[in-house]
This record gives sequence, structure tokens and C-alpha cells, in this order.
Amino acid sequence: MCKICKTKPIIQLTNTNISLCKSCFLKYFEKKTFKTIKKYDLIEKNDKILVAISGGKDSLTVLNILNKLRERLLFKIEALLIDEGIKNYRGITIIDAKNFCKKNNIKLTIVSFKKEFKYPLDSLIKKINLKPCTVCGVLRRYLLNKYSKKLKATKLVTGHNLDDEAQSILMNQFKHNIEISARLGPITGVISDKKFIKRIKPLYLLNEKETATYAYLNNFNSKYVECPYTIDSYRNEVRDMLNNFENKYPGTKHAIVNSFLDILPLLKDKYKTNKKIISCKKCKEPSSKEYCQACEILRMVGIHKS
Amino acid sequence: MCKICKTKPIIQLTNTNISLCKSCFLKYFEKKTFKTIKKYDLIEKNDKILVAISGGKDSLTVLNILNKLRERLLFKIEALLIDEGIKNYRGITIIDAKNFCKKNNIKLTIVSFKKEFKYPLDSLIKKINLKPCTVCGVLRRYLLNKYSKKLKATKLVTGHNLDDEAQSILMNQFKHNIEISARLGPITGVISDKKFIKRIKPLYLLNEKETATYAYLNNFNSKYVECPYTIDSYRNEVRDMLNNFENKYPGTKHAIVNSFLDILPLLKDKYKTNKKIISCKKCKEPSSKEYCQACEILRMVGIHKS
Repeated sequence: MCKICKTKPIIQLTNTNISLCKSCFLKYFEKKTFKTIKKYDLIEKNDKILVAISGGKDSLTVLNILNKLRERLLFKIEALLIDEGIKNYRGITIIDAKNFCKKNNIKLTIVSFKKEFKYPLDSLIKKINLKPCTVCGVLRRYLLNKYSKKLKATKLVTGHNLDDEAQSILMNQFKHNIEISARLGPITGVISDKKFIKRIKPLYLLNEKETATYAYLNNFNSKYVECPYTIDSYRNEVRDMLNNFENKYPGTKHAIVNSFLDILPLLKDKYKTNKKIISCKKCKEPSSKEYCQACEILRMVGIHKS
Repeated sequence: MCKICKTKPIIQLTNTNISLCKSCFLKYFEKKTFKTIKKYDLIEKNDKILVAISGGKDSLTVLNILNKLRERLLFKIEALLIDEGIKNYRGITIIDAKNFCKKNNIKLTIVSFKKEFKYPLDSLIKKINLKPCTVCGVLRRYLLNKYSKKLKATKLVTGHNLDDEAQSILMNQFKHNIEISARLGPITGVISDKKFIKRIKPLYLLNEKETATYAYLNNFNSKYVECPYTIDSYRNEVRDMLNNFENKYPGTKHAIVNSFLDILPLLKDKYKTNKKIISCKKCKEPSSKEYCQACEILRMVGIHKS
């Protein structure tokens, strides 16, 4: 029975043993997102919030909740979608994204690899000896940062949830890459020189199961699709292991993230970069080297001349 | 083939893919223990080292290596065994411990729960509603600390290895007990007021498989016995999970411990206790409360009058 209204439950919250009906769960989920925003000061009055969406469950969930909160918290909101050019995948989620934004009257900007870099990801990766996820990640981050500034956004929102964060923490720890974890947390990229946009994660304390349920109950997605390049087997193994522990010992994922949050200020201090951020010689975007990673990839595939 | 002398190998080191024969492995193991001692400054000239032994593989391994190093590093060594009084278990390892110390001419002090507290552990736990491991742990630590001072030791050695440490780190993290991890590390208990003895772990960077192999090759144990109360299922599950990851991704345990060592100074600083350590009103041993945990347990079982 629903803990609040005593009707038929649709979900049991893993961390608390509480069951909730559809209506109470949706309220709980939105309230917890709101509390996360307040707890970590993710959004300020007059922010211009740009939500990075793929059209998948996490990004449409966070966009939906922020759209509901914009009048209450007095901020502006727009959406940005990067169309990498992945056949049988991105085309489907773009339709969901467009439908959602049209229905909710949210301005959506779509930026494509094809238009920006002349080729879609599917073609780019055939020209280069790098993992698809590496090429995609570098170029996507490049475009997100570039268009965040072009659209005069003050914060960039991503749909990362508790599971994503707990997995990343352990993956870095199991590979002794702890300095990379210093860049995690509910709000990142706080660099004073304004070359990088601040990134925020309002779903930071909501887990995968809850997020998937919220998206499902809201019918955000017409069908379930997965990126054909997603073969990060290491993340999958860490995910499975964490799900096993969470099932047996509810609260494990929260404990990992809370332990991490306890030491995050120490990590940020210890690993704060002393590298000077300069402008890429080619594209003028921020870079730690003469040419940024994106221009380096574009040079490797023969789009930029060296 | 043995990487060093090209003879028949007996072990493959998990973290490096190197195979070694018996003789080269024993040298490698002892050298690595020596390096660990040097790296973390575990032993100084003129130290009086007391090795806490159970008679099991880890403690006899560390005792054996330290005994070989005592002339080179100029320290004194003795052994201390706490006989908790656990039927069909401790009696067996005590024989191995006595034989080892006699053969190697090491002074061994045996302290028993029965003589100290009037009852063996097997009887104590029937009088009290606490887990056997809790009762045993508190009373054993109490006696180790008390007799370390009585025997005028400057350092107390334990046989903890890399696997023990990696498990403890994750267990604390998965339960959000990160402040407990601040008490881990290769050398602990560095409290200025000399009420607590410093504890050191020379096998800190040697894993379980290596330690078990070293003990086996040296024939330290007449037979394999396990404590009948060992049902710490949580540690067992973390152990199994870690072994799975280590098998698939060699180096995982080292990565976890090295990640931990990177942040340990920050943890020690953040969680340094501000509690004043006083003397227990009953036994005069160090305590953070009026009565120490050991006296509290003895009061609960009716040995001390309240």
C-alpha cells in the first residue's frame, strides 16, 4: 500500500522500504529533485538554464521537472541537443525530444556533428583509430560548451543520476584514477575565467530505477533504444555489482555517493588544476594545450589541416 | 617459466603477470615486505617490536620475515598471542605458534581470556547479547594494548595484508562509515600521549594469495582451521566481489589501496579525534568514556560489579 495515500503502490523505494502509488511517487521524485537543487545551490534566480538532452529518459525527466520549476525559481530554460549522427538510434530519440519540447513550449536548439564537422559520428570513426565513445565524448563536450556560451546560458544541466555517479566513483577508484573523481559531484566546472560553463546534475540523489520509473510513467519515450556503440563493459560490470549489493544491502549506492561527498572538497582542493587554460589556436575554445582535443581529433580525421 | 631463474614456476603474481619459482618467490615476498617497511617508515632502529600472532598464516608469515630482518634493521622482537578460548580452533594454532617461536628462539607471551577475565570467549558470549566478534575484538584489543605496554614494546605488528585493507576500505565506504577508514593505513594509532601503542602492517602491499603461498611453502601451519564464529558475511561478499574484479582486471586491489593512500592524509586530518583520551575509572587503560569498552563488556557479563 502507498505509504502516503494507502492506494495501490507502483514502486518500492530501495533505500527506505517505502512503497508509493503513481501520483505520490511523481510528487516524491519532483520534490527530491527540488531539494537537491536547493541543497547544492544548483540554480540561482535569473539563471539561464540550458538542458543538454539526448531525448532519452534521464534528460527528458530532468527537463520536465526543471520546466515545472522555472516560474517558482525564476529562471529561464532552453534545451540543447547534439545530433552526433548515429544511425538507428539518435533519429528516434530526436523525435521524442522534439515532441516533448514542442508540447511544453521549450526552445530546442539542435546542433549536428554533420553540419559542424562535415561528417556524422558513424563516418568519423571509420577515419580514425580511436574508440567511438572517445571521439563522441570529446566532440560532444566541445559543442555543449561552445553552444552554451553562444546561447548565453549560465548553467548546463545534465541528466546524470545517483547510479551514474556511484559507478564513476568506483570505476575511478578501481583504476587508481582518483584525480578524475575530483571533477565529479552535483556541480562542476566552477572555473572563474568563464571559459567553461558550470554543469549541474539535479537528479544527483535519484537512482536509476526511480528515474526510469518517472520517465516511463510520463510516457517520455516512444520506444527504448540503446546506443549501438555502448560497449563500455567495465561500467556494465560495476553497474551489475552495485545492483547486486543494493539489492542485498539497500542504501549501498547512497552510502558510496555520501562517502564521496564527504571527501569531495578535500579532493577538489588536492587536485585543483594549476594548468593555465588558454585558447585553442585553431578554434579559440578553451584548452590546456596549444590545440584543443576536439581540433586534435578533427586534424586526425583530415578535416582540419595541420 | 620463472621470470628470474627460468626454472619451473609455482606462482603467477596477479598484478604483473610475472611467474616465479619457489626460491625466487620467497625472496620477492621478503624483499617486498622490507620495502614496505622502508616506504612507510614502519620500524626504526632500537624499536622493540611485538608481533601479535594467532598462529595462523598471516601472523606467522610476518613474524618470520621480521625475525629475519631484526639483525639488519637493529630492532628487538617478541611475540604475543591472545588465547581467547575458542574450542577446536585456537588450541590448534597455539601449537603452531609455540613450535615456530621455539624453533626460531623468539620469546612468546601467551595471555588468555580465561586467566584475565575468568572465562574463555566460548563461555563469555553465552552470558551476553553481543556478537562473538564484537566481544572478542574489544577484549583482544584491550589485552594487546595492555600487554604491549607491559612488555615495553614500541610497536605492535599485525598480519593484515592488501586484501584485508581493500575489503575494509570498501566496507566502510559501502556503509558510509568513512571516518572509520581514517584509522586504516600501514601505520596507525599514532597518538602522542603514549596511551595507545603504534600498530604497523608490514604485509600491507602483499596480497592474500601471496601471503598464503608464503606460509604454505614455509610449512607454518600443521593444518588449516577457521574460527567457528567467523560468519562476517558482509566481508565475505566484499572479498568475493574483489576477487572477481581482480581476476578480470588484475591490479584492482592495489588500485583501491593506492587510491586510499592518496587521500588518507586528508582523511586523518578531517577526522582527527578531538575526544580527550582519559583513563578508564576501573582498569586505568585508555578510554574515551568513564569506563572503557572492555570494562563495559565485563560489567555486562557480571564479572565487574557496576
